[in-house]
Amino acid sequence: MDEFALIRALAAKLPPPGEDVMVPIGDDCAVVEGKGRMAITTDAVVEGVHFRRDTLSPPQIGYRAVAAAVSDIAAMGGHPAWITIALAVPGAWPLEDVVALYDGVSEAASSLGASVVGGDVVSTEGPLWMSITAVGKVDRPVTRAGARPGDVLFVTGSLGGSAAGLDILLGRRAGSPVAQAALIARHRRPTPRIAFGREAARLGATALDDISDGLASELNEIAEASGVRLIVEADRIPVQPEVTEYARALGADPLAYALYGGEDYELVGTAPRDVFARLLAVAPIVGTPVAAIGRVEEGDGVVMRRAGRLEVVARKGYNHFER
Amino acid sequence: MDEFALIRALAAKLPPPGEDVMVPIGDDCAVVEGKGRMAITTDAVVEGVHFRRDTLSPPQIGYRAVAAAVSDIAAMGGHPAWITIALAVPGAWPLEDVVALYDGVSEAASSLGASVVGGDVVSTEGPLWMSITAVGKVDRPVTRAGARPGDVLFVTGSLGGSAAGLDILLGRRAGSPVAQAALIARHRRPTPRIAFGREAARLGATALDDISDGLASELNEIAEASGVRLIVEADRIPVQPEVTEYARALGADPLAYALYGGEDYELVGTAPRDVFARLLAVAPIVGTPVAAIGRVEEGDGVVMRRAGRLEVVARKGYNHFER
Repeated sequence: MDEFALIRALAAKLPPPGEDVMVPIGDDCAVVEGKGRMAITTDAVVEGVHFRRDTLSPPQIGYRAVAAAVSDIAAMGGHPAWITIALAVPGAWPLEDVVALYDGVSEAASSLGASVVGGDVVSTEGPLWMSITAVGKVDRPVTRAGARPGDVLFVTGSLGGSAAGLDILLGRRAGSPVAQAALIARHRRPTPRIAFGREAARLGATALDDISDGLASELNEIAEASGVRLIVEADRIPVQPEVTEYARALGADPLAYALYGGEDYELVGTAPRDVFARLLAVAPIVGTPVAAIGRVEEGDGVVMRRAGRLEVVARKGYNHFER
Repeated sequence: MDEFALIRALAAKLPPPGEDVMVPIGDDCAVVEGKGRMAITTDAVVEGVHFRRDTLSPPQIGYRAVAAAVSDIAAMGGHPAWITIALAVPGAWPLEDVVALYDGVSEAASSLGASVVGGDVVSTEGPLWMSITAVGKVDRPVTRAGARPGDVLFVTGSLGGSAAGLDILLGRRAGSPVAQAALIARHRRPTPRIAFGREAARLGATALDDISDGLASELNEIAEASGVRLIVEADRIPVQPEVTEYARALGADPLAYALYGGEDYELVGTAPRDVFARLLAVAPIVGTPVAAIGRVEEGDGVVMRRAGRLEVVARKGYNHFER
């Protein structure tokens, strides 16, 4: 299989592009019909850093890479439209596994409502990597910088499951087989909160971020960008129930998975009280649980109340360049 | 330096974003004001495959990576607006060299009229790589598929210089020092033909492609996508004069550099005769030489007339996956 045959095999995996795609894969560029404001984001994954062959199958690698990029669009209050993919292939990867990456890419793009419109395929002497660019439409962008004193601090879904699932995949098994299976599934198949993000933007949320690096890191991002202090109630943080079971069986702190685990791709944000009340009402309609976990105050940093004591929550999580 | 400090150091190198950027680097996504039709392209470069540390300095690596992506926008008849960059950094690269990549990124973005609006920085155990996504505005896209029998086949600038420059950098020295310096400069600093591409689109060119893989490969792309035969006159192909000097000193065929060398980032295209006449008139205004090198006929494939004989020009050039 040569480069052109590989590109054809990858493109054949993809669903037909949407009606807003004038020139699809195969020319110098894709051409699309732009509409108003757009969100653009790029997210890269590297074998050995973001995944391993024994923790994710090729379709799972492809699915997660697209989901992670699209999650950034959701965190801006937008919805994804177009995706490009750069893919670097090492000689040691069988080409059928490379093509199988695109089963996951295709599934993610279809289910998230985006068209894969282009990319680049190159060889590398190093590990396999993918760089995903997602372009979406966004009417009212919600950055990290709008949190105001008095706002409610909220988070969607439940946290900690992805990191616990990864720990299990890396051999640290504990708890019931059912709980372990649920955590592994959570790691392998995140769901970007597109519909909730759009509602949050429409209703007037003041800040929004997706949880890729762990809740602690994202809270610090919002506090710093907005110039406010965030007060978190530890017992309100929605830790995934299986995480609690797993962590207790290990003798570990379940909350640490939620705070520092990352890759849950839930949304964390802030909103005035009346906006949050409307978000609570709309949450069941978009199928996304949401919970208030604290509030915004004047000041700086992130402070958590746990068992009656206050502690500072440091920005901690994966850092690529601690040299 | 940690990940956040590195990102700040990279962002500090960049010129201020354009007025159409509502949310710049630093949030989940960039948000931009879209306007009508847009071209999207992604282009990746990998150390050891697309460049080596001894052939390009870090700023040259950054400049060329951006120029190569923007060239795809030019080949669609568009002009670039926004760029995102995924960058993977191996432990062996000094961080000051990583930051210096962005001197070139910044220079390319400024000179080509684009804003760098985001990206991702990750670590890797393999070679350094960059994946560049460029999004541009395009009024009338010119694909590879519109060439029609009777059209003139044209090419901009001169060809072969980049590949000859690379050969010299890899130690294959020949010819005068002045010619060698010109060829090395040509390799290190390509110029995407944005203004010419836009004029070609506006005036009614029927096909357009940029020369990244060599003229032979791009001609075959156009012939195949358009369902036509291209007839090329060998003695009209504008080989860069220093390439002729260099190749003759080596005992090599200068034309082989133009046909198979690649990375010249000139444009090759087709246009009806009257459109080509207008392109000839506008070429000096946009500072881009253009030459007719043949014509479009019914049939398929690419045929070159050289010294009175006809030969088929095969698609040849760098192929990432010849296994």
